[in-house]
Amino acid sequence: MRNDKEMWKKLGLDVELHQEILESIERNFKEQVLSQKNRPADMAYFDMAIKNAHCARVKEIIDRKNNGAKFIGTFCIYVPEEIVLALDAIPVALCGGTSLSIPYAEKTFPRNICPLVKSTLGLSFSRTCPYAPIKDMAVGETTCDAKKKTWDVLSKKVNFHVMEVPQKKEAKDKELWYEEVLNFKGRLEELTAKKLESEKLSKTTQLMNRKRRALQNLQSYRKASAPAISGMDSLVVMQAALNDDPERFCQKLEQLNEELGRRIKDGTSVADKKAKRVMISGCPSVMGNWKIHNLIESAGAVIVCDETCTGTRYFENLVAEENGSLEQQLKAISDRYLKISCSCFSPNEERMSNVLRLAKEYQVDGVVQYILQYCHTYNVEAINIASALKKEGIPNIKIETDYSEEDAGQLKTRLEAFLEGIESENAKR
Amino acid sequence: MRNDKEMWKKLGLDVELHQEILESIERNFKEQVLSQKNRPADMAYFDMAIKNAHCARVKEIIDRKNNGAKFIGTFCIYVPEEIVLALDAIPVALCGGTSLSIPYAEKTFPRNICPLVKSTLGLSFSRTCPYAPIKDMAVGETTCDAKKKTWDVLSKKVNFHVMEVPQKKEAKDKELWYEEVLNFKGRLEELTAKKLESEKLSKTTQLMNRKRRALQNLQSYRKASAPAISGMDSLVVMQAALNDDPERFCQKLEQLNEELGRRIKDGTSVADKKAKRVMISGCPSVMGNWKIHNLIESAGAVIVCDETCTGTRYFENLVAEENGSLEQQLKAISDRYLKISCSCFSPNEERMSNVLRLAKEYQVDGVVQYILQYCHTYNVEAINIASALKKEGIPNIKIETDYSEEDAGQLKTRLEAFLEGIESENAKR
Repeated sequence: MRNDKEMWKKLGLDVELHQEILESIERNFKEQVLSQKNRPADMAYFDMAIKNAHCARVKEIIDRKNNGAKFIGTFCIYVPEEIVLALDAIPVALCGGTSLSIPYAEKTFPRNICPLVKSTLGLSFSRTCPYAPIKDMAVGETTCDAKKKTWDVLSKKVNFHVMEVPQKKEAKDKELWYEEVLNFKGRLEELTAKKLESEKLSKTTQLMNRKRRALQNLQSYRKASAPAISGMDSLVVMQAALNDDPERFCQKLEQLNEELGRRIKDGTSVADKKAKRVMISGCPSVMGNWKIHNLIESAGAVIVCDETCTGTRYFENLVAEENGSLEQQLKAISDRYLKISCSCFSPNEERMSNVLRLAKEYQVDGVVQYILQYCHTYNVEAINIASALKKEGIPNIKIETDYSEEDAGQLKTRLEAFLEGIESENAKR
Repeated sequence: MRNDKEMWKKLGLDVELHQEILESIERNFKEQVLSQKNRPADMAYFDMAIKNAHCARVKEIIDRKNNGAKFIGTFCIYVPEEIVLALDAIPVALCGGTSLSIPYAEKTFPRNICPLVKSTLGLSFSRTCPYAPIKDMAVGETTCDAKKKTWDVLSKKVNFHVMEVPQKKEAKDKELWYEEVLNFKGRLEELTAKKLESEKLSKTTQLMNRKRRALQNLQSYRKASAPAISGMDSLVVMQAALNDDPERFCQKLEQLNEELGRRIKDGTSVADKKAKRVMISGCPSVMGNWKIHNLIESAGAVIVCDETCTGTRYFENLVAEENGSLEQQLKAISDRYLKISCSCFSPNEERMSNVLRLAKEYQVDGVVQYILQYCHTYNVEAINIASALKKEGIPNIKIETDYSEEDAGQLKTRLEAFLEGIESENAKR
C-alpha cells in the first residue's frame, strides 16, 4: 500500500482524492459484489484483479514500459487488440465507471453527455487515473457523437488516434474499416518503432481467440437451467478482461470455468429455481459500475446474458486464423471486429436478430434494456428492440440511468414490478 | 382558407390541432419577424412563402404530383438537390421548428433528444404535417446519433432512404460518400422510373448554383459596415430556401438583392451604428424557430452571419459545372456536398478555420454558439470553437436551448450581459 502511494505520487496523481475514489469503489464492490452468496472460489482472482487495477496492474505496466513496451489506452471494443499485442504493446480499456470523477469533467464538458465519457474524462482531469500519465497513445473511435467529439478535444493535448467505425455495413464500409485497421497498424508501428510480423500476429490472434473462447465457455455456465455463476460475477470477469494481461487472464478464467463445470455437475447454482432469467441489452457496465446488475440480482432475478460491450459483443465471433499473408490476417481481424453489433449502425437488423437469438438461446424471462443517460443510439434503438421483443412475446423494460445512486430506489421499484409482471404473465400460461 | 382546410382534411390531418399549431407559428412570426422596423419591401414575398408553407406550397406540390412528379422529404442539407430536381422530383426540407408538436414525439421517443428531431416527428405523429402524407420517399442521413437511429425506426413504416455521411474527410471517405451519392441516384431513378440525364443534371446544377450565388450575394449586404438586412430576415429567406420552388425562389431573391444593393448605396441600414455585429455558429434554426435570432436582435445587436445549416453551410461552395460525363458531374456534386463543414466530422479543423475566417470576414464583435439541446456534436465541439475564438480575441458565448419559451428571460439576460461585455472590452481598447 505504501509502495502504491509512492507510485501514485510519482505519477503526479492527486493522492488524497484518488484514495477517496478508490475507497468509494471498494465500498461499492464489497456491498454489491463480495456480499453475494455462494460465489465460485476461483472468483478470488478476478476480485483481486479489480482491486489491483490501480495498484499492481499499473506497476506491472510501468515495469513493462521500462523494458520498452508501449502502453495504449482504449475506450471501445472495436480497437483490435491482436495488433496492439503483436507489437509488444499493452492495451487497456480506460473507461470510467465511478460517479465521483464526473464533476471534474463537467467543469469543461457538457453535463448532458453520457456518464461513461464524463467519468473517464473526470478521472484524467482530476489526476486520479494512474493510466493517464503513463499512456503512450490513446485510441478512440467514432461510434457515438459524444465520444467522437471528445476525441477532437483531447487530441489537442494527448497523443491520440481515432479509428473511423463506419455507420453502415455494406461492402464499401467494410473496405473503409479495413483501411482504418491498416492505418491503426501503421500508427502503432510508428509509435513502437516495430514492424508488424505475420508470425507474431498469428500468436496474438490465437491468444485473443483463446480469451474469447474462454469467455464463451463461461457463458455456457450461465446458459444452464441452474446457472453456476451470477450475472454480477460474470460482469466482474468481463471488467477484468478489459484490464488484465490476456495470457494470465485466460489461464485464470479457464480455471474458473473448470470450477463452474464441476458446479453444473454437482447441481450447485447461484440462483433460486424460481429466479427470473434476465438478459441485459444495451450499454456497457465498466469497472466501478455494478449498479444495474446489483439492482436486478438483489431483486431475486439472475442475469444470464449481457448483450453489451461488457458482454457478448466483446467475445462473440472469433478471428479466422488465416495461415496466409499478413494482409489476409489483417483482413480477418477487420472482418471480425466489424461483426460487433453496436447500436451505431444503420440499419441494424443484425442487432435486432442478435438480441432475439440470445434471448431465446438463454431462455430469458425478460430483457432489461440498459441505457446510459444521454446515449442517443441505444436509447432510440430501444424502440425497435422493444417492438421486436414484443412480437416474440418477450417482456422488456428500458432503464435509463447514470452512475449516481439517487435513482436506485425508484429503479428498484420499477425492476421489481417488471419481474413480478413476468411472474404473473407466466402464471397465466 | 376554406380550400386549404379542405385540402388538409383530405390529407388526413388533425385539422383542429393543425390550426392551433399554425396560429401559434403565425403569432410568433408576427411578434418576432413582422414587428421588425425598416424591413426591405421585397421581404414580402418571403413572408408569404413562410405563410404558404402549409397552404399554397402544399397544393402546388400535390398538383405537380398529379402530373407525375415525385415528392422527396429531406432532413439535412447533405442531400444533393441537383439530383432530385434533375429527375423531376421535388425536394423539401421537413424539419420542424415548433415546440407544440414535441409532446407527440415524446410519447414514443426519448425526451432527451434534440428539439428539431422531436418537433419533426411530432408533426408527423400528430397528423399536423401536410407533407408527411404526400411524400413518396424520405431521405435521412447519418450526421448525428439521434437522427441516424430515428431513421431506423421510421424506415419500418415509411419509404425511407438513408445516406451515409462519413465521419472523416480522407480519400477513402470521399470515395464512400461518392458511392452513397450514386446509391441515392439509383434509388431515386427507381422511384421516379426515370434515368438521370447529363443534360438535365447540368441544368439543375446551374439552377442550384444560381440559388447559392444569390444567397451568397445576400450575405454581402449583411457583411457591409451598415447591414442592409437583419439576421432575422436573412433567416426567413433561408427558411424559404429549404421549402420553396428553387426557380421562383432565385428570381425573388435576386429581386430582394437588388433592393439591398440600393439600400447599401442609400446608406439605409437595419442596424444602429453602434449595434454589435454577431455571428451565430452551430445548429440550424428551421421554419417556426426564430427564438435565438429574436433574442439577439431584440437586445440591439445585429446578426451578420450564420455559420449554420440555415446559413453559410447551405450555400458556401458551388458545384463545379463540369461539361464532361454524368460520372464527372456526379463526382463534382459529391465533392461539393462533402465540403459542408458539419460538426459530425473528426477531426474538424476545417470547421474551426471556417468559423475564424467568417468571424473575421464579417468583422464580428462576438460569436453566439447556438446549440440545440442534446446535440452532442455541436455541444462538445463548442469547446474547441471557444478556445479557437479566444486565441483570436473574439468573444463567444454558448447558448444551449430548445424550442420552448421558458428560458427566454434567462437567455435574454445572458445575451445582454454578453453584448455589454463586448462593449466594455471594446471601450478598453
